[in-house]
Amino acid sequence: MTYDRRKLRWNGWGAAHAGFDFGPREPEVWAWIAAALGRREFARTPAVPLPDIEVPASRFDAAMFERFAAVVGHEHVKGDRYERAFHARGKSYPDLLRLRAGDLGDQVPDAVVYPESFDEVQALVELAALESVALVPFGGGSSVVGGVTAQRRKGQVGVVTVDTTRMNKLLALDEVSHTATLEAGVYGPDLEAQLQARGYTLGHYPQSFEYSTLGGWIAARGAGQQSNRYGKAEKWLLGAKLATPRGAWTTESFPASAAGPNMNQLVLGSEGTLGIIAEATVRVHPVPQVKDYRGYLFKNFAAGSAAVREIVQRGIPVAMLRLSDADETRFLQGFSGVQHPPGQVTKIGSRLVAWRGYAEERCLLLVGLEGERDAVFEARVATSCVCDRNGGFSLGRGAGRRWYARRFGMPYLRDPLLDRGIAVETLETSVRWANLPGLYEDLGAAIREALAQQAADAEARAIVMAHISHVYEDGASLYFTMVFPQRLGDSPVASANAAAEQWAFVKKAACETIAAGGGTISHHHGVGTDHAPWLAQEKGPVGFDLLAGLKERIDPRGVLNPGKLAAPG
Amino acid sequence: MTYDRRKLRWNGWGAAHAGFDFGPREPEVWAWIAAALGRREFARTPAVPLPDIEVPASRFDAAMFERFAAVVGHEHVKGDRYERAFHARGKSYPDLLRLRAGDLGDQVPDAVVYPESFDEVQALVELAALESVALVPFGGGSSVVGGVTAQRRKGQVGVVTVDTTRMNKLLALDEVSHTATLEAGVYGPDLEAQLQARGYTLGHYPQSFEYSTLGGWIAARGAGQQSNRYGKAEKWLLGAKLATPRGAWTTESFPASAAGPNMNQLVLGSEGTLGIIAEATVRVHPVPQVKDYRGYLFKNFAAGSAAVREIVQRGIPVAMLRLSDADETRFLQGFSGVQHPPGQVTKIGSRLVAWRGYAEERCLLLVGLEGERDAVFEARVATSCVCDRNGGFSLGRGAGRRWYARRFGMPYLRDPLLDRGIAVETLETSVRWANLPGLYEDLGAAIREALAQQAADAEARAIVMAHISHVYEDGASLYFTMVFPQRLGDSPVASANAAAEQWAFVKKAACETIAAGGGTISHHHGVGTDHAPWLAQEKGPVGFDLLAGLKERIDPRGVLNPGKLAAPG
Repeated sequence: MTYDRRKLRWNGWGAAHAGFDFGPREPEVWAWIAAALGRREFARTPAVPLPDIEVPASRFDAAMFERFAAVVGHEHVKGDRYERAFHARGKSYPDLLRLRAGDLGDQVPDAVVYPESFDEVQALVELAALESVALVPFGGGSSVVGGVTAQRRKGQVGVVTVDTTRMNKLLALDEVSHTATLEAGVYGPDLEAQLQARGYTLGHYPQSFEYSTLGGWIAARGAGQQSNRYGKAEKWLLGAKLATPRGAWTTESFPASAAGPNMNQLVLGSEGTLGIIAEATVRVHPVPQVKDYRGYLFKNFAAGSAAVREIVQRGIPVAMLRLSDADETRFLQGFSGVQHPPGQVTKIGSRLVAWRGYAEERCLLLVGLEGERDAVFEARVATSCVCDRNGGFSLGRGAGRRWYARRFGMPYLRDPLLDRGIAVETLETSVRWANLPGLYEDLGAAIREALAQQAADAEARAIVMAHISHVYEDGASLYFTMVFPQRLGDSPVASANAAAEQWAFVKKAACETIAAGGGTISHHHGVGTDHAPWLAQEKGPVGFDLLAGLKERIDPRGVLNPGKLAAPG
Repeated sequence: MTYDRRKLRWNGWGAAHAGFDFGPREPEVWAWIAAALGRREFARTPAVPLPDIEVPASRFDAAMFERFAAVVGHEHVKGDRYERAFHARGKSYPDLLRLRAGDLGDQVPDAVVYPESFDEVQALVELAALESVALVPFGGGSSVVGGVTAQRRKGQVGVVTVDTTRMNKLLALDEVSHTATLEAGVYGPDLEAQLQARGYTLGHYPQSFEYSTLGGWIAARGAGQQSNRYGKAEKWLLGAKLATPRGAWTTESFPASAAGPNMNQLVLGSEGTLGIIAEATVRVHPVPQVKDYRGYLFKNFAAGSAAVREIVQRGIPVAMLRLSDADETRFLQGFSGVQHPPGQVTKIGSRLVAWRGYAEERCLLLVGLEGERDAVFEARVATSCVCDRNGGFSLGRGAGRRWYARRFGMPYLRDPLLDRGIAVETLETSVRWANLPGLYEDLGAAIREALAQQAADAEARAIVMAHISHVYEDGASLYFTMVFPQRLGDSPVASANAAAEQWAFVKKAACETIAAGGGTISHHHGVGTDHAPWLAQEKGPVGFDLLAGLKERIDPRGVLNPGKLAAPG
């Protein structure tokens, strides 16, 4: 199963027929958002429709198309406007600015190919090296860091995007060892459907789950929302098969080994620059008997952080710990309150809770437990004890159920906001517990200050909020969301330019603050083009040089995904 | 704290004043061993004492010594026979053959240096590159795969061994994030003493714990006996600082990151060929409240394996699962029975247990639990339920206590056996659960067959036994021990040559069987020189080429530990 590209938004999120679920009170929701952002009325900034956009002609002649068709078959080489525009970029905020403005520049693939097998992918890589064509691997295309932009190196004659989504089969399931081998172009829902039909799950559910693929999760070292139970990609990847200019690269696949560095760890985070991931062997688990998600309120972020840290450092087996800061808690509760106005009883309850000290600084923690009935029960007792000790107030399962039902929904909100001149951007890092409070404060302050300096106008206000969503014994991720009025110009392209400058200013401030505060430039989004300027500093001169050396060694002509990670563009 | 090299066995295990604890019935123990190996009497094959050995002269002149002394100080550059012989090799079986025969060849360092700081190590690396001298990093020197042999590349003017054990300080402890930064030359007991004084533990206790160092554990991707709780080195290493020919290499150190491949994973298993590990940041844990080790008997290896697999796949938090096969169980119980003859009650008990089906094929499982009191209690209930369901018979805590008390003792048995013409060798792998029964059978058969073909004489018999000691959701390690009469010659050197050929024959058969059966060439011993011939096959042509590329990139002159891992010798 894969998605018909024509039924997806080429310049936005998800299925064209779907959208954010505002509920029956959409006008009130918009009024609430407008007030929060200091807007009396929203701008009208609809995306330029594809027919009105100039898509540059393909650089390829018929003979070149023929060469690629010889590998994958004529019906699997696409040169039409829709396919080329769809594959021009990913889903980052800068990507959407360009796509929505219809400003594709020359960063459009000259052809899109849909291989069906490892052998076809390998043949494509060899053909590309021979013809000096850049290859951009593309699964769901959901990168939010510019990971799939159709770029080429100077001197290369064109760009071909390799859409892997026809490669979506479960190749093997080892029910004794709890491992599965799959083709890497499989979308999340399809992957889980195939595994769950046999009683197993990978358990990797990023927010992009519905529209991202296994290969992308590996290439970007992704994390699912339940990473505490199922692991970030580096925990569940057991082996991979990649097509590279040096031939097929099959990595070792053992429970553990002391036979030199583990090459899987080079595949993880390689972002298509060292090879195209065609197949992967992953760790799977029996489908959990029980899922238990529930909410707790804490009086402030410090108390909530202390509870979360204690839970993970004591080794209590949770699937997810997600702690919103006071700003995010206020936003979520406010948003929900507008959508579903509380009754009198709820209002009184809220006031009582506030009176008990869960007031302006209150923070919402969601605890997710999954697994066997007994183990979940024990973990529930243990987590609620820790929450209690840290002043947590139990909200029961309602808050958990609401979050769970909408856990893939937020990306759909970005498109209608962008239609109204409102930007939504997220960024994330991870940092040691000892440095977390400082980085949380500094990063929030840096983002707010940068947004204030770049405010669209005097009335414009920004919503800046954060959560901890992936938790480790030694630290945690910090995930910031910002919503703010865009700087606009007097044409779609001028608006995109102004908004991109505004974004770049904020991004730079944020990245510098992260680096200074001991954080990584990305916990699970990846590097792509957006974070590439900060990668060398993070890896250090020797580490970065080794990465560059790996790239030169395996891909001396620079065919694979130019301009991403450490690959010269 | 470090060990005075003069108080250690230069050609054997551990402290010169210590030895294997035979107890008061040593003659009976030897008689029992002799019977098991088909020996009427043992050969006399004492090690050649150092004064009788020809140690080749150092290739260095006074000026070269002076250059190294300028870095570390005169008192920390050693050129005497003892220091050079001590650092000539590690503790592998082939190493001991050469050392004990006094056949050092030219594989002796020309000088031994003891740096005190990262800066000194970095200066040594730069000096060595300048002077074209090979550098062999050496911590405890406990490699059992030839990882510290004093080799040089053709054209290099000499070999300097860098003994890191003066670098043994705890540099920082982060009690919030549960991380510690230490100098890498710290020995196990010293490391734990420094951490435990502050209430923390790394929990890494390999059998070599007393005489191995942090840097070596990382370089060889080592595993402690309690790796299920504390992790193999790749789980607990969070960051490292290495001296390399390209300058200081400080790896990233985050709870998790998506910023490209994780460079720590290149340090792990690098075996001194990519840099000298000088400092490391590691994950630490509060010292456990409770340690609970107990034994279970299973009717056969399959039943024990099933229990072990169920425990780990259900996520029950154990520190250690160690399942001996029937041969090892018989050996351990027999050995113990000779040392401490059972009373009448025990004998009757044993007969009753045998009568219930725990007979010739019975297998001993040791379950180790560590942590907070409540968590250990819950894990004990859960593990004993699983054992019960798989037909396990509880032996209580006695068996666990006995194993725990002697857990570092076995290496001491090798020296007295070698004094009597008896070889002891171990090898290990890891493999998926689905392939484990097959590889267990095939590898045991291959070793027995090879040993039979290479038997010292017609009466000679071999003891071949195995255990599972590191357990993962997708598979487990298999650890084989073999004890057998050596092939001998008519001089110490001739004996060493004959025994080395005998060993090489068996080793080859074992390694080929492991590769054919889906196992890794090493789970935690490393590659060194012994496994180097099988590394390229395991990594595959592309993977091995990338390793070679990393080596060339960071150490173009091949200064660092020539001949080990993928480094040309």
